[in-house]
Amino acid sequence: METIYLDHMSTNPLNLEVLSAMMPYFKEDFGNPLSTHPIGAKAKEAVENARADVASLIGAKPNEIIFTSSGAEANNLALRGIALARQNQGRHIIVSKIEHHSVLNSARFLEKSGFAVTYLPTDKYGIVDPKTLQKAITKETILISIIHASPEVGTIEPIAELAKIARQNNIIFHTDAVASAGNIPVDVQEFGVDLLSLSAHQFYGPKGAGALYLREGIRIVPLIYGGIQEGGRRAGTENVPAIVGMGKAAELTKKYMDKRIDHIKPLRDKLIAHISKIDNVYLTGHPTERLPGHTSFVVEYIEGESVLLLLASRGIYAASGSACTSKALRASPVLLSLGIPANLAQGSVIFTLGEGTTEQAIDYLIDIFPQIVARLREISPYREGWGEKEVKHV
Amino acid sequence: METIYLDHMSTNPLNLEVLSAMMPYFKEDFGNPLSTHPIGAKAKEAVENARADVASLIGAKPNEIIFTSSGAEANNLALRGIALARQNQGRHIIVSKIEHHSVLNSARFLEKSGFAVTYLPTDKYGIVDPKTLQKAITKETILISIIHASPEVGTIEPIAELAKIARQNNIIFHTDAVASAGNIPVDVQEFGVDLLSLSAHQFYGPKGAGALYLREGIRIVPLIYGGIQEGGRRAGTENVPAIVGMGKAAELTKKYMDKRIDHIKPLRDKLIAHISKIDNVYLTGHPTERLPGHTSFVVEYIEGESVLLLLASRGIYAASGSACTSKALRASPVLLSLGIPANLAQGSVIFTLGEGTTEQAIDYLIDIFPQIVARLREISPYREGWGEKEVKHV
Repeated sequence: METIYLDHMSTNPLNLEVLSAMMPYFKEDFGNPLSTHPIGAKAKEAVENARADVASLIGAKPNEIIFTSSGAEANNLALRGIALARQNQGRHIIVSKIEHHSVLNSARFLEKSGFAVTYLPTDKYGIVDPKTLQKAITKETILISIIHASPEVGTIEPIAELAKIARQNNIIFHTDAVASAGNIPVDVQEFGVDLLSLSAHQFYGPKGAGALYLREGIRIVPLIYGGIQEGGRRAGTENVPAIVGMGKAAELTKKYMDKRIDHIKPLRDKLIAHISKIDNVYLTGHPTERLPGHTSFVVEYIEGESVLLLLASRGIYAASGSACTSKALRASPVLLSLGIPANLAQGSVIFTLGEGTTEQAIDYLIDIFPQIVARLREISPYREGWGEKEVKHV
Repeated sequence: METIYLDHMSTNPLNLEVLSAMMPYFKEDFGNPLSTHPIGAKAKEAVENARADVASLIGAKPNEIIFTSSGAEANNLALRGIALARQNQGRHIIVSKIEHHSVLNSARFLEKSGFAVTYLPTDKYGIVDPKTLQKAITKETILISIIHASPEVGTIEPIAELAKIARQNNIIFHTDAVASAGNIPVDVQEFGVDLLSLSAHQFYGPKGAGALYLREGIRIVPLIYGGIQEGGRRAGTENVPAIVGMGKAAELTKKYMDKRIDHIKPLRDKLIAHISKIDNVYLTGHPTERLPGHTSFVVEYIEGESVLLLLASRGIYAASGSACTSKALRASPVLLSLGIPANLAQGSVIFTLGEGTTEQAIDYLIDIFPQIVARLREISPYREGWGEKEVKHV
């Protein structure tokens, strides 16, 4: 059975040109960039070239890029590093309710450490209203972190507007652009942000490579202490092959992003149009202000995990926002914060498209999805008494 | 010109069998281990197999292994994670003066956060005396971290004895085994340690993969917050290829470690015997209780960086403890803490051998090193008035 991968938001296949660029650094050019001999110098040079490529993708200067091991690490560094560096100026932080776990849980850690955190609500599409942000600011606010695009519902936030409010109030602004950078244009100057997180495997680069953009002149407290790597801001021997891969992926992405968007956006729209037609199936997130390859739905009366299992049995690999964690099915906090009822939120299904997604695959999905939904509803224990069941699970 | 790599403590070439094991995870098996579909499940299975292999290398259980992005990250997680988890029981920490920067600077960060830290001295070989440790313990002591083997002087600490003292006093004991694990036998049960850090590229695995052994039942506060990866103890999408590589490297190391040691130890001894014969060149670290591939010297009247340059011009790639950081030549804090005078410490040269090192290479080095030393001493501005110069540089 041929398989159809529609889980590009979870991770992407590595671009083979990127892999080729990485290979020498697994082999003859294996040096440690801190070593002063030629093998080390070559690794150092490769890291700096990659830094320039990543900077170029987002309109930054190379010295504003701090390489990390993941987007999650970049988000942790941003929140905790800025909070610690500026705690003498105030101890209030603002994030949205639909942030990624790496931001939300960093914020919760800071709450335990004595910071106050405001969790901003969104509208039903997941959009943060700039006015809501303005109202939440106090004299103690030192940091605002709003996600650029939600990996779960695909909604793209008005980052430039939100960052402008931060700037007007002299507050540092961070955006988690892990789901967006490499998929849609991201420019730190246009956005007016001070920090921005990104992750290589979101744009066909390798796992194990992320980066934090930190505007020149802003001080940050490191998350990982040790040697002088990354200008003393992130210690640990550089993962040279992964960093080289991130640089190459950034270079290719800059070149091919428009083409990729032109390819996947019509497929996304076709998929949304057809899936939304099924009875009691609803699009989540914004209908138009959303990532070009992102579709997300809630299917009433059935659980997302069951849908994924049946889809997989037909060769389609997708995701759900109601992730099965520690054996207890839980409704996605992001969907709940959008005002979606808990029982409905459990029927979350996410299809995310990539550059390799074909129209044929989308047509196949459009064809079989209604059958899968119908079949599951027939055997669903939730069809009757859904309301009571829900109480048990949330 | 053929090159001779004698900088194995900085990093190692990746074993090609390890690279082969990694390749599928760059290609068809690119999934995110959190995804429930088969591509994700395959990645998850690969991570768990690697976890078992790494655990097996150090006598641990698989669930006691937390994958990190580097040894430095493992050290940061160990120190800060345990300090935060146990701060209600006391706020005193003990480390040695010859710890790696990732431990020392984590300790300094904790000092700034209100913890008290004792930095234990060593003898002139770099050995921590168990009696010194015993005396440093107070009722407030919650964590002791002593490096297993120094990457700079090669000295191996009596970890089992040191850990025993910690256990007798109900104090958590961590050892940084980044320089030792994979090079000499490391067994967490024999050592009696609670936490142990290791790094894959130190034993022919890939960069970007480290691990922290955490004894079952001990609570730790995460360093990187986010998703449920690594049992909620370390968030971020797993670097699957690197983790797979670490597992494969651990498996091969378990098999070939004795053979590697048998190969490099006689070469090390030959090198030490010959280099030590040169006038005013001294071995640093312990003469026998040292890593099998590790040699380190101080060369009077000249600077290590100059030696490295001339060595490189003859095709030999080595390291120095007097790393050139932020454009200022500084003597190595580790060498100073061994009681080596600052001027002498600047003449640090480190040759570290690997499985590929040949006797021919060692003979060549033995042949040319005296010539290089003689030549540099002829032109050395430090030959006369070395004492005054020293003041400027330290």
